[in-house]
Order: sequence, then C-alpha cells, then structure tokens
Amino acid sequence: MEGKVTFSLHDKCEIIESITEEIEEFMLWMGSFGKQEEGGVTRLLYSEAWRDAQLALAAAMEQAGLEASFDWVGNLFGKLPGTETNKTSIMTGSHVDTVKNGGMYDGTFGIAAGVIALKYLKQHFGMPKRSLEVVSLCEEEGSRFPMTYWGSGSITGRRHVEEIALLTDENGISFREAMEAAGFGSGTLRDSRRQDIGAFIELHVEQGIVLERKNLNIGIVEAIVGQRRYTIEVTGEANHAGTTPMMWRKDALGGASGMTQYLLNAAREQGAPLVATVGRFEVKPNVANVIPEKVIFTVDVRHPDATVLETFCHRFLTEFRKIAEEQELHVQTHLWMNASPVNMDKGLSAKIERICKSHDISHLSMASGAGHDAQMFQHICPSALIFVPSHLGISHSPQEYTSPADLAVGTAVLIELLYLLGYKEEEI
Amino acid sequence: MEGKVTFSLHDKCEIIESITEEIEEFMLWMGSFGKQEEGGVTRLLYSEAWRDAQLALAAAMEQAGLEASFDWVGNLFGKLPGTETNKTSIMTGSHVDTVKNGGMYDGTFGIAAGVIALKYLKQHFGMPKRSLEVVSLCEEEGSRFPMTYWGSGSITGRRHVEEIALLTDENGISFREAMEAAGFGSGTLRDSRRQDIGAFIELHVEQGIVLERKNLNIGIVEAIVGQRRYTIEVTGEANHAGTTPMMWRKDALGGASGMTQYLLNAAREQGAPLVATVGRFEVKPNVANVIPEKVIFTVDVRHPDATVLETFCHRFLTEFRKIAEEQELHVQTHLWMNASPVNMDKGLSAKIERICKSHDISHLSMASGAGHDAQMFQHICPSALIFVPSHLGISHSPQEYTSPADLAVGTAVLIELLYLLGYKEEEI
Repeated sequence: MEGKVTFSLHDKCEIIESITEEIEEFMLWMGSFGKQEEGGVTRLLYSEAWRDAQLALAAAMEQAGLEASFDWVGNLFGKLPGTETNKTSIMTGSHVDTVKNGGMYDGTFGIAAGVIALKYLKQHFGMPKRSLEVVSLCEEEGSRFPMTYWGSGSITGRRHVEEIALLTDENGISFREAMEAAGFGSGTLRDSRRQDIGAFIELHVEQGIVLERKNLNIGIVEAIVGQRRYTIEVTGEANHAGTTPMMWRKDALGGASGMTQYLLNAAREQGAPLVATVGRFEVKPNVANVIPEKVIFTVDVRHPDATVLETFCHRFLTEFRKIAEEQELHVQTHLWMNASPVNMDKGLSAKIERICKSHDISHLSMASGAGHDAQMFQHICPSALIFVPSHLGISHSPQEYTSPADLAVGTAVLIELLYLLGYKEEEI
Repeated sequence: MEGKVTFSLHDKCEIIESITEEIEEFMLWMGSFGKQEEGGVTRLLYSEAWRDAQLALAAAMEQAGLEASFDWVGNLFGKLPGTETNKTSIMTGSHVDTVKNGGMYDGTFGIAAGVIALKYLKQHFGMPKRSLEVVSLCEEEGSRFPMTYWGSGSITGRRHVEEIALLTDENGISFREAMEAAGFGSGTLRDSRRQDIGAFIELHVEQGIVLERKNLNIGIVEAIVGQRRYTIEVTGEANHAGTTPMMWRKDALGGASGMTQYLLNAAREQGAPLVATVGRFEVKPNVANVIPEKVIFTVDVRHPDATVLETFCHRFLTEFRKIAEEQELHVQTHLWMNASPVNMDKGLSAKIERICKSHDISHLSMASGAGHDAQMFQHICPSALIFVPSHLGISHSPQEYTSPADLAVGTAVLIELLYLLGYKEEEI
C-alpha cells in the first residue's frame, strides 16, 4: 500500500491513461446542457439549462460514490466523508454557470476533474481520513445579473442575500424570482455559509495564451488580478434624426462612443498587464431614425496592482464626466464589482510545484488575469488555483478548447494533491 | 351659398373655434392606442396597438359620415364620394405607425385633421364634386422592419410585396407573418395600387424648431431632403475580458465606436443642412466580461442636394473600411434606404400660400429635413406638404407637442384647400 501511494512517474502515466477518455466524455456530456445553435454553451444562473446541469451532476456524483447535496443558493456538493470526523474538509471544484454562448471548459472542467478525482481516489484508496468534497458552484460569471461569485461568495460569507434584493436580469426578472423558480432560496435547504473548509483547490483552464505559447502543462497561480466593473448611464435627448441640426443634438450615443474610445485608448497607452473592456452596450430607444436618448454600458478594468487600478479608474471616470459636460449629457456611474488583487496560498502552491517536479510535469508560476472562485475561498482558508492550457487563449467563446491530454494531466495533479491532503494527512 | 364658400378671415376664426376642441380630443383619443408607461406612444406596424388604432379610426370615419375601407397592406381610407364620378380623387392624410415610445402628433395629426376636415365640409357644403378621401397610411417610419413608406409606397407603386419577402423584425418575426396576423395581405382585400388620385395633401407637425423660433403658423414645404440608411455589421473575435492583452484583441465595439465617432465628427465638419445619425446599435454577445464579437448599427444621412449626399456617404464608408482594416475587423455595409430629394408641387404650394395670405396666416416656404409620405405621392400626382409648429422641435419623443390652436390653424388651411379643389373645382 505505502509503496503505491506516492505516485511514481509511471503511476502518473497510468492515471492519465485511465482518465483521459473519462474526462473527455464527461466534458462533452456537460457541454450538452445549454448547447447553442451558434455552437457555444449558455447556462445562465437559475435558467432551465443551468438547473438541468446541476441535477444531472448530482446524479453523476452519486454514481461516482459521493454523497450529493444542495445548499440554499443552489451550490451542489459531492462528498467523500473522512474517517476522522473532527477534521475540516478539503474542497475542490469550480462554477457551473457560463457566459452567453460561452465555452465548454470554463468552470465546468474544475467540476468534472473534481468528480473524477474523488471517484478515482475512492476506488483505489477507499475512504479518506479528511473529508474530500467536490463543489459545483452555482454562479461566478455575473452574466445574468450584475452579481458575481454568488456561489463561492455565499459559502465564504462574502455575498449576502440582501445584496440581490433589487437585482433584475435584462428581461426584468428579479434575482429572487429566478432563484425560487429554480427551486432554491427556500428555508428547507441548508444554509450556504461554511466554517468547516480546511483548503480549497480549483482547477481551471487558463483562458489565456501563456501556457500554450510556452508549451507548458500546468500554471500555478500566485496572484489573481484585481478588477472593477462599472455600469455607466449616459442620458441625452431623443429627437428626430432628420430635423435636428448636429449642433443642437444631445446624442447619448455620441457621448458613449466617445467615452468608449477614450477608455480603450487609455488602456493601450497604460500598457500590459492593464486591460479595459466595454462588453455590454444598450441604446434607447434603439431605432434607426431617432437620436439616442440613453446609453447604458459596462466597463471592466483589471490589474494585479491595487494602486494602478485605482488610479486608472479615477482617470477614466473624470474624463467621462468631462465628455458628458462638453456635450450637455448627463452621466451616472455605478461601481458594482470591486475585487482587490488576491495572493494564493504559498504552502499549497509549493506542494503543487513539488508534485509537478517529482513527475516531470512542465509548469510555471504565474498571475491570473481573470477572477476565479478560489480568490473568495482564500479569504477563509488556504486556497490554490491550477491552470491547464487554453488553445489560442480563446475563452468565453464557442472556440474555447483544451485537449483531453492536457485536461488529464491537470486532473492527475489534482488527484495527487487531494491524496496527499486527504489520505496522507500532509499539513496544509 | 356662394357668399359663404370663400371664407373670410372671420369665417376662418369661426372654423378654428369650432374645431379646436374637436382636434384636441381626437389627438388625445388617438394617443391612447399604444400608450407607453414611459409616457410615449408605440404603434409598430401590424402590432396589436396598431391594429386597434386602425379599427377605431375606421369606426370614427363612418361616424363622420365617410365610407371606410382597407386595402391589401392595411391602409385605411375614409371617402366622401364626388358627384362627378369621372373625376380623380383628392386625397389627404398621413401615417398611423409611430417609432418606439414616440410622440402623439407625428403622422397622427395628418389623419385626424383629414377626418375632421371632411366631416366639416360634408356638414357645411354637402357632397363634393370631386371625391375627397382621408387615408390612414399603415407604415412610414421603418421602426419595426427595415422598410419605410410601406403604406404610401404600396399605393404609388414604389413598394412591392417582393421587397418584404426576407424582412424580419428584431424578434425574428417575418414581415409576411406579422401582416397576416394583423388580418392583411390576403386576396380578399383590394389591391393597394391606385391610379385615380388627382392630388395628395399631407398635413404634418414640423418636427423641427424653425416655425416656433420664427413664431409662424404654417410651413409650406418646397422640397424634402434626400436620405440614405445603412446597416453596418462589424465582426471581430469574442474573447475573455481579463486574459486577452489589449494588443491581441479584435474588439468589434472598439471598431464600431470609432466609426460612430468618425461619422458624427465628419457630419459636424460638413455643416448644416447635412445630418448623420447612428440610432440603432446592437452588440453581441453583450456581456460585461466578454470582448464583443459583433456590432450591428445603423447610419442615417440626409441632405437636400443629391451630390453632397452621395459624396459624404462615399467618404464615411471608405473610412469605415479603413478603420476595420487597421483593427483586423471585418465590416459589411448594407444600403437599405436610398431616397432622392423631392420637390413638391409648385401649383398646390401657391394655392396654400394664397390661402394663408388671404387670411393673414403667418407662413414660410421651407425644406423638410424629414422624409414624408407626400414625397411618394409626388411621383404619381401633384402633392403638397403643410407643416404646423413643433414645440422645441422635439419629435420621435414623448415630449413631442403642438398646441391645439396651432393644430386648428393647420386644419383650417386644409379645409379651405380641400374646399377649393373638391367643391369649387379649382384646377390643380
């Protein structure tokens, strides 16, 4: 037994062989929930496709020999109970929701790898000493409601039900309504807040091009960038497109497109790693022969240094107000997401590095340009974030792709890390 | 009898007194069809509100003693048959459709004034020698489908059913589907094409600020500007807002907002009377944390000189392609409306001027910056376009307003013109 447990490179290859097909099938199966004609996947929080996916995952967890259960907000857990019941749980997993017409791997991979890892460990080593759990987090993207990390935030106490009271989606459906329609937010379900998590490990696709360009298998994330998201509302005056001379117009779109141009140019001047994006852009009344009265658009800005981020945001908000004033427009800005940069746990990262080295798995310590659920868990327990390559770095798109072999290497690293923590009781 | 018929100024005041309240009530009543919470009116072609309005108008026409009938596309006619049946009809009216959340007066006033004028004439002078008709045209704005002047175009042979074959609204409903759902486009209705119209007179709110600024009652339109409308489709690459460095992006919104800025600046440099508008702007996938893959927007350009219009459009289209190339974006442009400038009938305009002078009604000969149904009729018969003031020039907006007194003066002028043509048989 003892000989078997610290994998040799040969054992790692065996693991990878034995799980490559399984992980590929699991990913394709999950990709069928919310499949779009355009080729992508859409699983917005509490939608029908989202609900179908969570219920199917619960069944798959039971099939894998795990105890499946939902919490109040709709997070799904698959548990392998530890023999030493006084110990905290080791948790792995990621989010089940997607952006509109997004990819098959973002979020989903971390859940699939977790289920397969726990199944593998139970089959080969029986029950762990420390409880091991895989979680399918209900929401991370903020694609349906202006709210991100609803799943991990509810578990870690960083999100509260009061925050959703006034939120509605683009069809005017309230957050609460949607949650209850999906069967959650009711008293019979267990409270989402957890105090018994000893460590959190998230496996995720890089959503960038670094690992592929450098031809590496694993990225060990040291820090996650800080990011801010704003809603900007520009108000002018609706008027006739033919009879209103240019100089008498109060064109909300004229102002909003100028602000967008300023933001993108300023981000280019600032240079990497700063990124700024206008992703959402709504015009009212949105008719060809009417001068737009209102434009509501979003701004997403990210940088690993809190001060640089702060300074840049102050700068573009000042310019937006100036542009509005010059054009006799009214502008309102609303900061609805403000995540500080987060450093991941050094101890866990060192273990992952050790695993990679001992099995000659090529790896790199790096920063993440995207936010991830692991940053929420880092506030309550040591947390790690492990990347596998993304082909061409394309993500949030139907073209998102990672080869089954790359997925399997990441899963193998997760299996060994969970083994060390759950069965060998290595100190976290 | 003869003494009464050529109105003295005193008679004009009597008319105005007698119809001011009636026109005000009629306008408020019409404004109730498609009334929006935001305060405006929305009657998109073949919608439920549109259908309710047409059916209610048909009843109102019968009540006014007119013969009401619909044609194949849903134009509604109220006829006062002439005693001399060999003569062509004199037609007045305007369009019943509105833009999204538009005003109460645009189009509607021309219909209301026509019904009230014909009712007044029948009551005071009995049946005319030449047939008089008021028409409630089904569509002019192009707000639901990329198709304008569907009503007047079908009557004058400038629009054909083949042109709607592929058109759908923003919800994917086909033009044909919508028309049939509203009860039109069926063989049992009479063909829309007319060959028996002797003259067309349209009464309309100015939708501009000239008459109010100059404190004048009536605008006599000599020419209508030419206009072009395009749909511009910019395609880039959807990608992750956090992990994609600025220099590697293919941001469709970055390109489209730059094109919008270029267009508006070029229009300002060109100077009045040229106007250019981006009224509609759709982003895909339209999510805060995804770099936009596609933007589809409209461009509306107008000028009374065909050559200036042509040159300006060529210039901005060239620049759009240049911007797309520089940013590695793909751009497609589609011209879906191309209306040449139109001169209105000099003879009818002279009659209107004579009526105004003889009754000391302040007036101005002017150009129209907006397209109107009268320009379609001018292709098949002498046509006139008469403006009344628009408060602050605001139009296509809930704030659109013209005082009942101004509406009544315009209606009185229409009554006298119809009297001269229908009863006095003045040459057109």
